[in-house]
Amino acid sequence: MTDIKIKTASSESVVHCGAGAFEKYAKKHKGRVFIVTDKNVYSLYGNLMRETFGSEAVIKVLPAGEKSKNSRNLLSIIGAMAEAGVKRNGLVIAFGGGVVGDIAGLSASLYMRGVRLVQIPTTLLSQVDSSVGGKTAVDFGKIKNLIGTFYQPEEVIADPMFLDTLPKRELNCGLGEIIKYGALDGEIYEKLCKNKDRLYDCGFLGGITADCIRHKADVVRRDEHDLNGIRKTLNLGHTTGHAFELYYGRRPHGEYVLIGMYYELYIAKRKGVCGGEYSDNLISLIKKIVKVPAYADIENSAVLAKHDKKNSDENISLVVPQSEGKSAEIFIGLDEYIRLLNECGRSL
Amino acid sequence: MTDIKIKTASSESVVHCGAGAFEKYAKKHKGRVFIVTDKNVYSLYGNLMRETFGSEAVIKVLPAGEKSKNSRNLLSIIGAMAEAGVKRNGLVIAFGGGVVGDIAGLSASLYMRGVRLVQIPTTLLSQVDSSVGGKTAVDFGKIKNLIGTFYQPEEVIADPMFLDTLPKRELNCGLGEIIKYGALDGEIYEKLCKNKDRLYDCGFLGGITADCIRHKADVVRRDEHDLNGIRKTLNLGHTTGHAFELYYGRRPHGEYVLIGMYYELYIAKRKGVCGGEYSDNLISLIKKIVKVPAYADIENSAVLAKHDKKNSDENISLVVPQSEGKSAEIFIGLDEYIRLLNECGRSL
Repeated sequence: MTDIKIKTASSESVVHCGAGAFEKYAKKHKGRVFIVTDKNVYSLYGNLMRETFGSEAVIKVLPAGEKSKNSRNLLSIIGAMAEAGVKRNGLVIAFGGGVVGDIAGLSASLYMRGVRLVQIPTTLLSQVDSSVGGKTAVDFGKIKNLIGTFYQPEEVIADPMFLDTLPKRELNCGLGEIIKYGALDGEIYEKLCKNKDRLYDCGFLGGITADCIRHKADVVRRDEHDLNGIRKTLNLGHTTGHAFELYYGRRPHGEYVLIGMYYELYIAKRKGVCGGEYSDNLISLIKKIVKVPAYADIENSAVLAKHDKKNSDENISLVVPQSEGKSAEIFIGLDEYIRLLNECGRSL
Repeated sequence: MTDIKIKTASSESVVHCGAGAFEKYAKKHKGRVFIVTDKNVYSLYGNLMRETFGSEAVIKVLPAGEKSKNSRNLLSIIGAMAEAGVKRNGLVIAFGGGVVGDIAGLSASLYMRGVRLVQIPTTLLSQVDSSVGGKTAVDFGKIKNLIGTFYQPEEVIADPMFLDTLPKRELNCGLGEIIKYGALDGEIYEKLCKNKDRLYDCGFLGGITADCIRHKADVVRRDEHDLNGIRKTLNLGHTTGHAFELYYGRRPHGEYVLIGMYYELYIAKRKGVCGGEYSDNLISLIKKIVKVPAYADIENSAVLAKHDKKNSDENISLVVPQSEGKSAEIFIGLDEYIRLLNECGRSL
């Protein structure tokens, strides 16, 4: 088990990762809690929640899926907190995947201007990514994460015991982000290359999760509010992946991150930023997880990258792999972006 | 003109107070803005907004009054911001009184996890109190300020030019808070005593506003998130005032603060915490602004003080004046609280 501390200007957060993290938290935990979860997680772990947090715990169960991450459910959680008499020193536990973590985190940050928050991420994706770093959000008016806050949980419990029940496709989501961390961090890259034939092994995943969290914690410490460009590196693969996701849908987010990385790696090669064996190795890792499709309608999907909230000016900004442990930000006009994506698609 | 800087762990804010502050801001201001205001303020200053911020400015006009501070209007402001294409580096201007400042501040803090915010408070109350310190909120499910954030504006423009159009009752609201600052701050107390016959004079109000902001800025610097008890002192008079406000309504908030202060001063005297000439002087200041009523139903109104979000345990906590520039926190059981409020009412 590893404890990773994240101290930012405004607060301090501890991530407990590894086997046994949940049991340890359950033992030391005291007092009444307000739990937010979803239907899928509740059907698997409802009994565990009751056993761990007692009959006094209030459990708010949301429908499963990204569509639940909306303002109606946000207000409904806050209403339920008021009804349950949650006080300023009350504790909200986000028990579930990224959707639960995002909306429960936002609720906790807004209720009486902020109550205590603990994240218990139950998917690989939320363990390596969304539960750490304090970004909370709901979607609004078809815009992803339009409403949100930066709000650090006091603790994150990332226990691999929850990964056992995940379907392979759900693991792919997390692996998408893990390979992204590999493209940013030399140590993670080495481990991925060494273990490329056991990427789905739970023992391997438990260890690499801690490495990814360590990388992210370091980024968040240096750029909590996404202002100086450091946190933006975590967006590697996301600009293009997200544009395809918006246009084509029907595929887990993490797979789109990998597809986005693949296309952006092609652009990085063509622009002379990244190449050789390093780029080939990243591509072979991506292909172990997902079959990259050649999209038919690049024009209309790529244009959605322009609407990304990180692209406030004329050019599209992409964070791309450069060499082991090193990434670079490149700026590219929309026309060239579309041309290179098309080229990449034809090469598939 | 005075500039007061508020540096907290998470950000920095500058309050520009005094005559000419608005004109100076108008001159240096650049770029497109999103303005939130209300119908009353818009009818008085709509032309000034257009002249100052140009035809590109988007102006969202809310109905006037506390009832507008709700989650429906919050989402409607955020929707309008998205429609207007506000970016991450966009600027929201809260142009109005406390309601506008609270809801616009919350919108700015949530949109894309926070855009730039400038407060232009147009009432005495919002100038001396709500526009400074970064508390934002909307009411929800009949609970005041249930949903909110701490979010510092980059600038506050507190210009007495806006006070000229205020009715006397509206000035009373601000004077309620100003006399509260007098009970916390020796310098402000001296000025109030010296000027007790010109409390409504705009020249006097402009100067004392800067003193109150200076006091509040110092408190916010030391306790931004209301955690260590320092910021709680600003609650002087509010616990009892707010309970009466909830129960009896139909009177401006600032007058309730004064009425609450009067009743709490009585309790402080009876408990031996505050007395003598100091207490008499504060009472005579209060009586210059408001006629303190003897409430008939103390029992049912006082019990509402228990629901105050600052009272998380059995006793009621009150911050009361002690001596010049000094306050004390006292804890009192509900029964004794009701008994002393009744005594105070009978003495009127």
